[in-house]
Amino acid sequence: MMRHLLSIDDLERSDLDELLDLGESFLAVTRRDIPKVPALRGKTVVSLFYEDSTRTRLSFETAAKRLSADTMAFSVSGSSVAKGESLRDTVQTIEAMGVDAVVVRHPSAGAPHRVATWIDAAVVNAGDGRHEHPTQALLDALTLRRHRGIGLDGARVAIIGDARHSRVARSTAKAFAALGAEVTLVGPPTLLPESLIGWPVATTGDFDELLPSLDVVYLLRIQHERQDATLFPSLREYTTRYGLTVERAARLKPDTLIMHPGPMNRGVEIAAELAEGPGSVITEQVANGVAVRMAVLYQLLGTGAPVA
Amino acid sequence: MMRHLLSIDDLERSDLDELLDLGESFLAVTRRDIPKVPALRGKTVVSLFYEDSTRTRLSFETAAKRLSADTMAFSVSGSSVAKGESLRDTVQTIEAMGVDAVVVRHPSAGAPHRVATWIDAAVVNAGDGRHEHPTQALLDALTLRRHRGIGLDGARVAIIGDARHSRVARSTAKAFAALGAEVTLVGPPTLLPESLIGWPVATTGDFDELLPSLDVVYLLRIQHERQDATLFPSLREYTTRYGLTVERAARLKPDTLIMHPGPMNRGVEIAAELAEGPGSVITEQVANGVAVRMAVLYQLLGTGAPVA
Amino acid sequence: MMRHLLSIDDLERSDLDELLDLGESFLAVTRRDIPKVPALRGKTVVSLFYEDSTRTRLSFETAAKRLSADTMAFSVSGSSVAKGESLRDTVQTIEAMGVDAVVVRHPSAGAPHRVATWIDAAVVNAGDGRHEHPTQALLDALTLRRHRGIGLDGARVAIIGDARHSRVARSTAKAFAALGAEVTLVGPPTLLPESLIGWPVATTGDFDELLPSLDVVYLLRIQHERQDATLFPSLREYTTRYGLTVERAARLKPDTLIMHPGPMNRGVEIAAELAEGPGSVITEQVANGVAVRMAVLYQLLGTGAPVA
Repeated sequence: MMRHLLSIDDLERSDLDELLDLGESFLAVTRRDIPKVPALRGKTVVSLFYEDSTRTRLSFETAAKRLSADTMAFSVSGSSVAKGESLRDTVQTIEAMGVDAVVVRHPSAGAPHRVATWIDAAVVNAGDGRHEHPTQALLDALTLRRHRGIGLDGARVAIIGDARHSRVARSTAKAFAALGAEVTLVGPPTLLPESLIGWPVATTGDFDELLPSLDVVYLLRIQHERQDATLFPSLREYTTRYGLTVERAARLKPDTLIMHPGPMNRGVEIAAELAEGPGSVITEQVANGVAVRMAVLYQLLGTGAPVA
Repeated sequence: MMRHLLSIDDLERSDLDELLDLGESFLAVTRRDIPKVPALRGKTVVSLFYEDSTRTRLSFETAAKRLSADTMAFSVSGSSVAKGESLRDTVQTIEAMGVDAVVVRHPSAGAPHRVATWIDAAVVNAGDGRHEHPTQALLDALTLRRHRGIGLDGARVAIIGDARHSRVARSTAKAFAALGAEVTLVGPPTLLPESLIGWPVATTGDFDELLPSLDVVYLLRIQHERQDATLFPSLREYTTRYGLTVERAARLKPDTLIMHPGPMNRGVEIAAELAEGPGSVITEQVANGVAVRMAVLYQLLGTGAPVA
Repeated sequence: MMRHLLSIDDLERSDLDELLDLGESFLAVTRRDIPKVPALRGKTVVSLFYEDSTRTRLSFETAAKRLSADTMAFSVSGSSVAKGESLRDTVQTIEAMGVDAVVVRHPSAGAPHRVATWIDAAVVNAGDGRHEHPTQALLDALTLRRHRGIGLDGARVAIIGDARHSRVARSTAKAFAALGAEVTLVGPPTLLPESLIGWPVATTGDFDELLPSLDVVYLLRIQHERQDATLFPSLREYTTRYGLTVERAARLKPDTLIMHPGPMNRGVEIAAELAEGPGSVITEQVANGVAVRMAVLYQLLGTGAPVA
């Protein structure tokens, strides 16, 4: 029985399969005319975000509401956090109000793990520093699985961009690999991990060489707003070598999937027209995000009764 | 069947009448002991506000909740918009989460129209630049209709203030005129529209001359916080010539209605005591706002079943 | 029949007992598997906070949701308040939208009282300047009562810290005294009230002398972020004379309760290890806060039917 969702490492292959099966069921729920089930009625889910992310927060809130849970947002600005309250006091206070799950985003790696040692409520890691973002990995896995069938065995995935500083890359690479895919990180040496310990991946600096063999092109967001200028010469240079341009896309197999965790920099890591093109499953990723978050909350808080 | 509400221009007279009839029904609902109907259970309404307006956002949220819809707020600060995400990617992401209606406020005229071309969800314009604010027009029309009867034929309405830069003036003038009222914009030449194309109104600079004949005095907010200093000499000067002072109010007919879209600058465009006086229907406007927004959401998202 | 909750002064002893009994019932509700009752279905509770306090706001929202009310938050930034709208126009607008209760926090003493004269909706004071914070007092009283039994007669309570500038101290001292406790304010002369008119308390500068006799040590938060530097020499000096250190705690009776309204400055007014220690009821205070706020909203808005 899963108590928290902190890292993809905590999940066995069978746990992953179970969560994705459940995600599949909830995806069907979200397509009903009334896309709600009473599974978590009376439960309260709080989002505790120490970094801005309306996108991820809304996805979790939507998931909770579709399960009939109550939702609350603890925003850091305007809270006692601004008065210097410790993370521990904050989460213990929230729990004492009668909360069942806390969805935590925090700039420090490991913060959700510490939260989980302090409270009895379920903790979901919604992104901790450069460490992990496990629900992103689950939604990516669900998206890929829906196109490839349950086994991802032998699927060739390239993750392109700043994997070194990316919690998305780390979590998604682990989940894809655990399900049988072969993952290659692509980027200049400055953006690849310094060590591959814990990364079940190969690496390369040559995107073009891989293109014809890929089943999935997974583009990371270039976070140029906080990019250390020394990591690559310029955005234009980055696009020239690692952007998914129309020219590069023409060298992919016809059924190669294009994925991106969003928000996109159109014209930087991905050409604008490819974002809407036939290979893109980027909006499917968003829809699947709600479904896997329903699955996670249901596993953590549900009674084990079948999905209504 | 209405798919979006973007502009008063999109509504035929019969559409207007139907929305106002529905607004009337929902006004009765809001006065019940339990002022809710299950009409939109399972639907999700998101507010996407690129300009601050707690007042309008709360009115839409209240309307959605009274219809039993789920509501979510996508605030621009703290979102991926701050990271430079395009409006298109933002709304497509929101839609992919499974949203049924998006209520958009945006500083650029036409932004909600563009949104409507990108997504299948219903789009409601909650104010776009200096262009339109159609639900304000509907609530104003409902308010006037409740005092005048269904036809507004021959009702003489003056809209006083900065019509040139006002989406409220444009939308409300159109709705009043479509229902049969005679609308005159009142203000100095610098605040009147440069062209009257698309404005079904007369104009004058002489407020005092009109006073005895008016059925409705509709005062616009002087947005002095963003007022270009060259448009009129001073607030005091504005009040002297165009403010609804107690002296001017004494020259109105006894049953003339006083309207204002809020928030008011008491002592500038309206004397403080008149805001609460017998002719004022300003708080009725707020109450009617919830009812017409229920009507709009119900028409866009409802099944067509009668209001419960 | 209580119409508003503005000050502890408005409550007779019998009102206090009734609210605390009701709080006790709702505490039992919050421990159910589905901790909700339909008591306030269709009612709308708005929080109107002119000062930051996520903690208090979430407690009220949780309380409202557990009673099945709809909740909305009117935040001051991003609202027409920023455009200079008066408090009166703001609350009249909110009421016109169909709100049943307004929970007000405001930096000016007496603001909630003024609000109550302007609207028919119920008003709850969630903290006004340095004046009162009545629901804090109720949760403190419920916490103490649950450990002492219904009468607090003869319970010896010390409230330590900056009582002069504390609405918590004022409200909680009154509630404790009304229920029979003997309250002593402890602190340097600069932090004690200039006059004891309206304060049913004794005062002392000597914390150590009191220690062996106390049933309750109630520590106020040192608001060093807005502390006027002249009130005490330094935080270290404060802790030395008035902090609940491990040494001081060793001189308390074994069953002395340690209370704090939160958020704590660990290591300043309270040693970190005591916050989690056996005498601490600090997280109980938080849980009881939700229960007494349910009691208050139920009394103000309920039909008088028994709690389901």
